[in-house]
Amino acid sequence: MAAAIRFSLRNLGRTATNPSVGTLIVDDHGIIVGRGVTAVGGRPHAEPQALAEAGERAKGATAYVTLEPCAHHGRTPPCANALVAAGIRRVVGAAADPDPRVAGRGYAILRDAGIDVTEGVLATEASDAMAGYLMRSLNKRPYVTLKLALSADDMIGREGKGQLPITGATARAQVQMMRAASDAIMVGINTALADDPLLTVRLSGLEGRSPIRIVLDKNSRLPLQSNLVRTARDVPVRIAASVDNDRRAKLEAAGVGILAVEEFDGRIAMPELLEDLASQGIANLFIEGGAATARALLTDGLVDRLVLFKGAMKIGRGGIASPIAWDTPLQGFHLTRESRFGDDLCREWRRD
Amino acid sequence: MAAAIRFSLRNLGRTATNPSVGTLIVDDHGIIVGRGVTAVGGRPHAEPQALAEAGERAKGATAYVTLEPCAHHGRTPPCANALVAAGIRRVVGAAADPDPRVAGRGYAILRDAGIDVTEGVLATEASDAMAGYLMRSLNKRPYVTLKLALSADDMIGREGKGQLPITGATARAQVQMMRAASDAIMVGINTALADDPLLTVRLSGLEGRSPIRIVLDKNSRLPLQSNLVRTARDVPVRIAASVDNDRRAKLEAAGVGILAVEEFDGRIAMPELLEDLASQGIANLFIEGGAATARALLTDGLVDRLVLFKGAMKIGRGGIASPIAWDTPLQGFHLTRESRFGDDLCREWRRD
Repeated sequence: MAAAIRFSLRNLGRTATNPSVGTLIVDDHGIIVGRGVTAVGGRPHAEPQALAEAGERAKGATAYVTLEPCAHHGRTPPCANALVAAGIRRVVGAAADPDPRVAGRGYAILRDAGIDVTEGVLATEASDAMAGYLMRSLNKRPYVTLKLALSADDMIGREGKGQLPITGATARAQVQMMRAASDAIMVGINTALADDPLLTVRLSGLEGRSPIRIVLDKNSRLPLQSNLVRTARDVPVRIAASVDNDRRAKLEAAGVGILAVEEFDGRIAMPELLEDLASQGIANLFIEGGAATARALLTDGLVDRLVLFKGAMKIGRGGIASPIAWDTPLQGFHLTRESRFGDDLCREWRRD
Repeated sequence: MAAAIRFSLRNLGRTATNPSVGTLIVDDHGIIVGRGVTAVGGRPHAEPQALAEAGERAKGATAYVTLEPCAHHGRTPPCANALVAAGIRRVVGAAADPDPRVAGRGYAILRDAGIDVTEGVLATEASDAMAGYLMRSLNKRPYVTLKLALSADDMIGREGKGQLPITGATARAQVQMMRAASDAIMVGINTALADDPLLTVRLSGLEGRSPIRIVLDKNSRLPLQSNLVRTARDVPVRIAASVDNDRRAKLEAAGVGILAVEEFDGRIAMPELLEDLASQGIANLFIEGGAATARALLTDGLVDRLVLFKGAMKIGRGGIASPIAWDTPLQGFHLTRESRFGDDLCREWRRD
């Protein structure tokens, strides 16, 4: 199952709105005879691909699936039925599928056909790998990852100074990898104005994998000359705007999409915005700052994963304090990973 | 209620992924003191807008809502609670909301607060007006409207002849109105090749309301020089493609999006494609041809509404026969409207 989960990660971020699922078919001698991962774009599913590779060798074999096989009919047969038809003898499953058209029915089809089914093997690990799909299915909002780059003195930037290279090239490449595995990237308007970021994936070989870019910009202040607007016809940009004004119309004419939002106490109503994004198919949302946006999401309890980078430089006077200190344990979160990228440290926390 | 439903149509096609809902607040003297329709982009909802207009006059008044008021909390209060807080005395509702977070709970909140609730008034008419939202919520696919323009001899075109003006300018303007009320337009590759259509809304004042354009094009044959591809950076174009080849990569580089599809018996698996479109937020899908696409959707039972135009010209030899004849009553459908646009007739059928 661990191998199936690793295999499922191959297309993470490229299978929306389906989850990236892995399937391995293993014969009696323990030999992998078929492998499948949800195809880019979400179809075909993993199971028929693994079965096709296995061919006749699927007969009597064991299938390891990271998500319960689907049970609903379209023109193509449900994956549960495909496993039955191929003569699979045993199915080992990890996560259950909350989709009401599956939700236990996939496993039931297998059992009714006399297949030996073991559920819930490494379910937590598999669920982590498709956290976006599960969050969107169960809670109608995307899985939210908040990234912050902290200086040695726990600052995330300096007032009015534009983009500061808090971390090195290796850590920044890692951030681009995280972008590529997301459906959308979001920043606040202050970050967009101060840093004039591109928010694209520019790693060699991954240039085509930039997700859509969203700016929380209720008054439509994003400049027409900004890097984001200038590239809006190549990689989509949307502003979450509540006020319909001339600037908004001009941004729209420049190719920027509008997400209608409501305000509450003068701030964008974040739960409603996330609900709308999920409804439009966004399952993995990557937040890249700044302090106000991070605080708003943390206050509303909408952060699922925190990725903190720690650089060696000090910012000192005029610095913008991080809403989260590097060394303070985070209430409601647990540390899941510590790593080093070049000279920079990285800690990943997940919601309990 | 009829007035509230008519009012709700104002933003039809512009409120995705929320339905376009209408609310009227009427005082004791029968005077409308507040009106609201879901804002462009889906937020704010109709109710708070109507209540804001009514102000103090909402106290003791009756609210007519075309859809059950929402019951789930974000940062803004649910509409059901907003009606209670405003002192509304009676609520007359049309359609029930199948969203599991509402589904009777909206009306329950009103009743618990002592408000007199009447449900289901003109429910059919209100449901028609938000058919896309209801279809997507209940059946996880868009509401599908198939449009066909028939010649006097029941042909829809002539082999290899490109676009034929089967109907006149008034009927064609009507088709553009229907496009503007949709979330996406879809054609088969044969239509795209033969007609080289733009599929945009070019009516004065509605230029910005072109929905995304989808071509069923499993082998990625759409030419780079076609009108669709040339305008892909202004109005999104996607091809439903199953084969990953050089042409597909070139189309992607030209700004065309890819919808991954599966094949079944050599044809695109349509139920799966529609499921994916719904998952991405598309609730109203408008099909503009040709014969093969129409037949595929009819065979799979995926057409909810048929709009047939009938022009005066004859096509004769070499004509492409319509999959549906003008005068044959359609099994499983009932005629809901007959109208005339210029010299052309129009019949609208809905699934029983």
